[in-house]
Amino acid sequence: MIPTPDDIERAWERIRDHVRVTPVVSLEPGELGVPAPTVLKLELLQHTGSFKPRGAFNSVLTAGESRHSEADGPVRHGGRSSALAGRVMNGLIAASGGNHGAAVAYVAQRLGLHAEVFVPSTSPPMKRDRIAALGADVRVIEGLYDDAQVAVDVRALETGAFKVHPYDSPVVVAGQGTMARELERQVDAIDTLLVATGGGGFIAGQAAWFAGRVRVVSVEPATSQCLRAALEAETPTPVDVSGIAADSLGAAQLGAAPWDVVHRYVHDAVVVEDEEIRAAQRAIWDGLRLIAEPGGAAALAALRTGAYRPEQGERVAVVVCGANCDPATIVS
Amino acid sequence: MIPTPDDIERAWERIRDHVRVTPVVSLEPGELGVPAPTVLKLELLQHTGSFKPRGAFNSVLTAGESRHSEADGPVRHGGRSSALAGRVMNGLIAASGGNHGAAVAYVAQRLGLHAEVFVPSTSPPMKRDRIAALGADVRVIEGLYDDAQVAVDVRALETGAFKVHPYDSPVVVAGQGTMARELERQVDAIDTLLVATGGGGFIAGQAAWFAGRVRVVSVEPATSQCLRAALEAETPTPVDVSGIAADSLGAAQLGAAPWDVVHRYVHDAVVVEDEEIRAAQRAIWDGLRLIAEPGGAAALAALRTGAYRPEQGERVAVVVCGANCDPATIVS
Repeated sequence: MIPTPDDIERAWERIRDHVRVTPVVSLEPGELGVPAPTVLKLELLQHTGSFKPRGAFNSVLTAGESRHSEADGPVRHGGRSSALAGRVMNGLIAASGGNHGAAVAYVAQRLGLHAEVFVPSTSPPMKRDRIAALGADVRVIEGLYDDAQVAVDVRALETGAFKVHPYDSPVVVAGQGTMARELERQVDAIDTLLVATGGGGFIAGQAAWFAGRVRVVSVEPATSQCLRAALEAETPTPVDVSGIAADSLGAAQLGAAPWDVVHRYVHDAVVVEDEEIRAAQRAIWDGLRLIAEPGGAAALAALRTGAYRPEQGERVAVVVCGANCDPATIVS
Repeated sequence: MIPTPDDIERAWERIRDHVRVTPVVSLEPGELGVPAPTVLKLELLQHTGSFKPRGAFNSVLTAGESRHSEADGPVRHGGRSSALAGRVMNGLIAASGGNHGAAVAYVAQRLGLHAEVFVPSTSPPMKRDRIAALGADVRVIEGLYDDAQVAVDVRALETGAFKVHPYDSPVVVAGQGTMARELERQVDAIDTLLVATGGGGFIAGQAAWFAGRVRVVSVEPATSQCLRAALEAETPTPVDVSGIAADSLGAAQLGAAPWDVVHRYVHDAVVVEDEEIRAAQRAIWDGLRLIAEPGGAAALAALRTGAYRPEQGERVAVVVCGANCDPATIVS
């Protein structure tokens, strides 16, 4: 169940025509409060403002290849669905009020598929509008994420649409891991990669690509620590979630597919407080003129505060993984 | 008086320890409204949120080398002023309520020099605060930019400080041209570069680097067209300026030093309306989650609207050159 670097290589072949190569920028000690030279991977400049399309494209394109044998090699799509097959032709369906919903809407738009996104009534109207603007049918469900997920399960039985999970699937993990593959081609060498963790799909993808060659460090808000809870319990276990990054990192439990990778290849797991995330958002604006959402700034916060403290000469990269928030919450 | 590619190479040696290599991102046709594949040079991620430090560093470091002969080669600075000499030791002085003021403040902070920035009372308090936050002494002068410039001239006689001009100097032009040198190493090949024009220092730097090898196209707001006026009059000539980009592009007359380059190497000069600039700012946020100020978005507006229309297969790059505005003016 653990995606191999070869799986990630194949994921890259599948999705490469559909995702952006996001840039990197180098920081000197002191810039944005980092203690040592640091590479920032600007994954917040990915389509829809987060890394999520990588996993969603790989999930949908893999499902769409179902009539092809592995020996045929990857199917190349010219941006339209003509080469797709199987359930995905019934459309895509997902539960999300945030970045995953936008990514699924984007994937559908790009591949010429229909998408239905079930959004909990607690999610911000701004994010819902974004999903609708990308052409998806948005259904608002009274309640929280779990209620939206139940509605998705029921609806998928009716429509036969393909359910795109935000993190708990090896193909999603492999898709997210294409970021690490890309990063490795953009920098000379790194020793350590800091990644924010929600349900675990993103960090698992990076850890699966590096497979121990680079230290992968998880950063979670103190208010939602499902990865640390899983490490402690030695299995995914439910946690309470809250705080400013909950809309992107607030998974109630680490995914089983990510866990397979995480418990083997994640080197360390640290936490940051909400006010440290806020300060990192502000530093990213002041020093680099980028708008990072709370979940997008969390990994940098760990480096700024010393929650993760690199050794002398350690070459550190930090992923800034999401941009979807109201700039007015950062720029006073 | 025209900086040569060699001058720009030397400028790069001087400033390389002090400026960011800003990233590029590739757009497909349709993304952000571009009609064809386009490279965006994200110069808005430069220190202080605009390209201005390139020219300001080259200006100050060149002046600080005054005791060294050319044969000694470039002086390398370790981030401090110990190797500097001459007038710059009396401090830096500039008139600007905007990006140039922030750049001069940044240069001074970085080199351990004092800076005094004279700001017209008409400039936004947000930009003044930014200049002050970078450690410069901010003096507010009743009136417009020209009034602040007069105050600078008087004050510089008293203090002996080094005046850093925003654009009208060959060393400033050479410093700005380091962006083109950098861009050429980041992309396979380009045919055309679209650049927004204010006083002309930035476009002249790019044109001087390419020296006819790449078409350099000037983009001005319809409300401030000093480059087009100069082309028409065959010499720099005063124009009226207004409009949403006036704080960064609203020069009353093209500089004489830029003109030497512009009339020889600028291929075309187009204009965009204020509402097209606004739409480009919005597209940059919607499609790429970047905050570009009006002057920073103007060049992209020319490509979106067809003010500049590339031929079939023409490889176009566009500079997004500034980020310093209130995001609330873009994100509703």
